[in-house]
Amino acid sequence: MSGSSISGFSRLTKKEKIDWIVNAYGGGDEKMTDILSQYELSEDSLQKLHDGFSENTISNFILPMGIAPNFLIDGIYYAVPMVIEESSVVAAASSAAKFWQTRGGFHTEIVSTYKVGHISFRWKGDMASIDRYEAELTADLIKHTAHLTANMEKRGGGLRDLRFLKVDELTDIYQLMARFETCDSMGANFINTILEAYASCLEIWFESKAELYDTFGPIQVIISILSNYTPECIARAWVECPIAELDISRQGDEDIRSLAEKFKTAVDIAKADVFRATTHNKGIYNGIDAVVIATGNDFRAIEASGHAYASRTGRYSSLSECRIENEHFYFGLEVPLALGTVGGLTSLHPLARVSLELLGKPNAETLMSIVASVGLAQNFAALRSLVTTGIQKGHMKMHLQNILSHLQASESQRELATTYFADKTISHKAVRDFLNEVDKL
Amino acid sequence: MSGSSISGFSRLTKKEKIDWIVNAYGGGDEKMTDILSQYELSEDSLQKLHDGFSENTISNFILPMGIAPNFLIDGIYYAVPMVIEESSVVAAASSAAKFWQTRGGFHTEIVSTYKVGHISFRWKGDMASIDRYEAELTADLIKHTAHLTANMEKRGGGLRDLRFLKVDELTDIYQLMARFETCDSMGANFINTILEAYASCLEIWFESKAELYDTFGPIQVIISILSNYTPECIARAWVECPIAELDISRQGDEDIRSLAEKFKTAVDIAKADVFRATTHNKGIYNGIDAVVIATGNDFRAIEASGHAYASRTGRYSSLSECRIENEHFYFGLEVPLALGTVGGLTSLHPLARVSLELLGKPNAETLMSIVASVGLAQNFAALRSLVTTGIQKGHMKMHLQNILSHLQASESQRELATTYFADKTISHKAVRDFLNEVDKL
Repeated sequence: MSGSSISGFSRLTKKEKIDWIVNAYGGGDEKMTDILSQYELSEDSLQKLHDGFSENTISNFILPMGIAPNFLIDGIYYAVPMVIEESSVVAAASSAAKFWQTRGGFHTEIVSTYKVGHISFRWKGDMASIDRYEAELTADLIKHTAHLTANMEKRGGGLRDLRFLKVDELTDIYQLMARFETCDSMGANFINTILEAYASCLEIWFESKAELYDTFGPIQVIISILSNYTPECIARAWVECPIAELDISRQGDEDIRSLAEKFKTAVDIAKADVFRATTHNKGIYNGIDAVVIATGNDFRAIEASGHAYASRTGRYSSLSECRIENEHFYFGLEVPLALGTVGGLTSLHPLARVSLELLGKPNAETLMSIVASVGLAQNFAALRSLVTTGIQKGHMKMHLQNILSHLQASESQRELATTYFADKTISHKAVRDFLNEVDKL
Repeated sequence: MSGSSISGFSRLTKKEKIDWIVNAYGGGDEKMTDILSQYELSEDSLQKLHDGFSENTISNFILPMGIAPNFLIDGIYYAVPMVIEESSVVAAASSAAKFWQTRGGFHTEIVSTYKVGHISFRWKGDMASIDRYEAELTADLIKHTAHLTANMEKRGGGLRDLRFLKVDELTDIYQLMARFETCDSMGANFINTILEAYASCLEIWFESKAELYDTFGPIQVIISILSNYTPECIARAWVECPIAELDISRQGDEDIRSLAEKFKTAVDIAKADVFRATTHNKGIYNGIDAVVIATGNDFRAIEASGHAYASRTGRYSSLSECRIENEHFYFGLEVPLALGTVGGLTSLHPLARVSLELLGKPNAETLMSIVASVGLAQNFAALRSLVTTGIQKGHMKMHLQNILSHLQASESQRELATTYFADKTISHKAVRDFLNEVDKL
């Protein structure tokens, strides 16, 4: 076996870890040590804070933090902090924000904010027996966790309801599903703590209830954990304007209405085709994740929930939709966003704190509105590019050269055409007409 | 309207950008400027490099870069660089790697490496007409893009096939689907460049083909872009061992076979239930994304593809599966991973370069194997915690106190039980038996 293994790596100092890794896997190259060190923060306590967020740290991985200004959302301007390593994303968000600020901006609505968790357990009993004792059982769970939910209840949150379910496909597997309101915290720790307490109480209750225990035996708790799938924690964001105001062409003279229809067709294709839907939604998450990271939230949770939601009809599909009705253009997005603005990294990472301050210290619902709007902006900007000039640089120039090749234009014709079409819309017919005119000269 | 808008933000210097944002949205707080500045790199050219990755940058957002050592994958040891802001992820990966290194390690297989892209276009013609000219048309496309594919072909990649499709649900919408091999590059730029060239050629071909044009008119290209959905760019990773060697208990005396069954049931629940599947897969991506980011790849693309793949049967489901057969334990993962080890940020971000060097400068297939293994390790570690001690700290201590409350133990009984059960498995029966024994003293 090649490569090195090590015992007790986590107990080494940071310097020892770097020395080991550079020697074992970097050929002892001092340049590698220098590269890792050049990202070290000069202030020791700040570096220690960041090292404490994870384990076995050897360096600080930098992602650019940028600003997309001019986001008019529900009548308020935001300059949105975005953390993303992919070029053009911040520029695209800024461009979409600028376009829509003169057309009413982004509108949003928070549909609901419930989060859920489950205790899955094995039991030889039947649903009828659970139904019979459900009131007693849930009262018992609530009573024994009152000390854990008291603080959240003071803030207006807490448990909303409890429900027992049978997992149809699996023998003897039941679930207790709990719905929570966690206010401005993402709520993972709160929900997991409550669920593990419920699980403990459930075991005890079933063991102590002789009339069930004697017939069906104990329950075996398999797993107790929150779900990142949050189809009841949903934000909607949309933009709309009369078609006549939707001058998205970058070339200047393509028909507005035809472009709007083309835009809508592009969204419809992402509704109908999983290949297109995946990249379409990926573009939405380019925007969403950038704000999620900037504010110290967990982008894996947001991604998993959103893509699972995109497949809720049984077919993975676009999260956004476009309508053109009565000469009016509507483009909207509905997306699950279980975000927090207090607790966790949101208050620990100094730059996450700065991001939240720049956004006016939003509550969780306002942050959901902002994030959904940026996701929609990103989707709009990407589609706008795709249905007009294409996303590769020099697309139209390439197209012109292809047409000229096809029409077997001479060298001098090519030169004339390249100059002539520098600021004009290129089509096969326009180029052919131009060459015919040139021939007459 | 509250908040500030601005024109020409992108043309400001970095310092001017920071000044504007701190004044417009930070109340002019100098502390905010200090926080943004404390992450600035001392070396100017390095800072400029990082600022160039995105737009409108005001700071460097730090994510911890850690190392998970002892990953034995296909007989080779790796110390895997991981970039993640969530605590316990690197520790969990390390713990799973350590567990499996003495049980044969991780095994992987690259199922295939094709990537795809589509040109979606509107056309009034029928599929029969396309079929009739398909050979001529595809030959034309290949001929006119030979100069663009030559380099990739030298490296063993390039176009693999072209196919025309009708989008059933939409009127007059067709797709040209192209499959590519892009070797060690992720291939987005290559594929998009080729597709836009195809689109241009398609327009020209349909316009110049009189027998079609006179009847059906021109095509209108709607959108030309690669797909991030890569169901033919797939890595498999698995671990396996005799049940007798699967001593995953952290308490010491729970029956190995029963725990293995519980582990399998937990995976089966994630197969059957979308709520559990989402969080289950989210855990997999905790591991996957951390390596994807560390190596300069695009985690939004990887997430979108993976979650779309998780819904491919019509129901969003677990990406991993577990089998117990003939006293043998198998736990495996199948996941789409369109990764690159050359091009883009992989070679531009100094720490991405370091990551790839630490991994032995892998080709794309080896990186796919490593990433899939880390995803599986993460899933294993999470499930192991969930089916044994729970994920919240002090879970078993809490459970003991709940049992004691329920049995109405006295203060002195509580103290005795807490000491006695500090290193023992806790169950309702064990605690009751203990209290009965104590009563007899």
